[in-house]
Amino acid sequence: MNFKTDTEVAIGGKLFTLSGYESEEYMQKVASYINNKMNEYSKVDSFTRQSMDTQNVLLLLNIADDYFKAKNQISLLEEELQTKEKELYNLKHELISSQIKLEASDKQLRELEKQNGDAASRPQKAGKEAKV
Amino acid sequence: MNFKTDTEVAIGGKLFTLSGYESEEYMQKVASYINNKMNEYSKVDSFTRQSMDTQNVLLLLNIADDYFKAKNQISLLEEELQTKEKELYNLKHELISSQIKLEASDKQLRELEKQNGDAASRPQKAGKEAKV
Repeated sequence: MNFKTDTEVAIGGKLFTLSGYESEEYMQKVASYINNKMNEYSKVDSFTRQSMDTQNVLLLLNIADDYFKAKNQISLLEEELQTKEKELYNLKHELISSQIKLEASDKQLRELEKQNGDAASRPQKAGKEAKV
Repeated sequence: MNFKTDTEVAIGGKLFTLSGYESEEYMQKVASYINNKMNEYSKVDSFTRQSMDTQNVLLLLNIADDYFKAKNQISLLEEELQTKEKELYNLKHELISSQIKLEASDKQLRELEKQNGDAASRPQKAGKEAKV
């Protein structure tokens, strides 16, 4: 976080004036996330029994744990995206080759229909040839 | 983090024994991430000038900020995934309809070729008809 503009936040019941580039709304959201952690922990005897130093470190570890879990989720999502990208690439190729085949088949069809049209329009000619 | 098995980690130059379900390797990774933050900050006068309380809170805020930035990235990746899903859905439909058209066109083609084959195999018949 870069410190710049002033925002007053209450964390652990104490007021802190923070200077940062982030919006006040964002700072308050982050602060209330930390306060929720503190409230959670204040109900856990195995936490409140610890020294303040240890309590601070456990809080840091807990928030860092949330961060690493989120980072892990990011990696999984990025892998999923790569898989979808490959699927899309293959499907696009399949579609193009199917469309090319369709064009070729339609072209052949039109030619044959034209030939048949011509053939149907000259039965007399066929007759004369037979007389010779 | 759930506290269960014991892991000893050094944070801010002090040893802490943490009980948790996480692997020691993971705990050490999280600890060294926090130590790097502390080392970063120890070089910033505007941080070291603060009271220990404020320094602790600033560290909590900085790590929480990393977490919220990661959460934001997760939302963006999830939106991107949804877009790809829709793209895949539409492409699959396009491919199926193209394949159906291709089958129909090929079927018509085979029928026409068969008709032409039959026609070509009875030129005499055409001649006799012409004599009548």
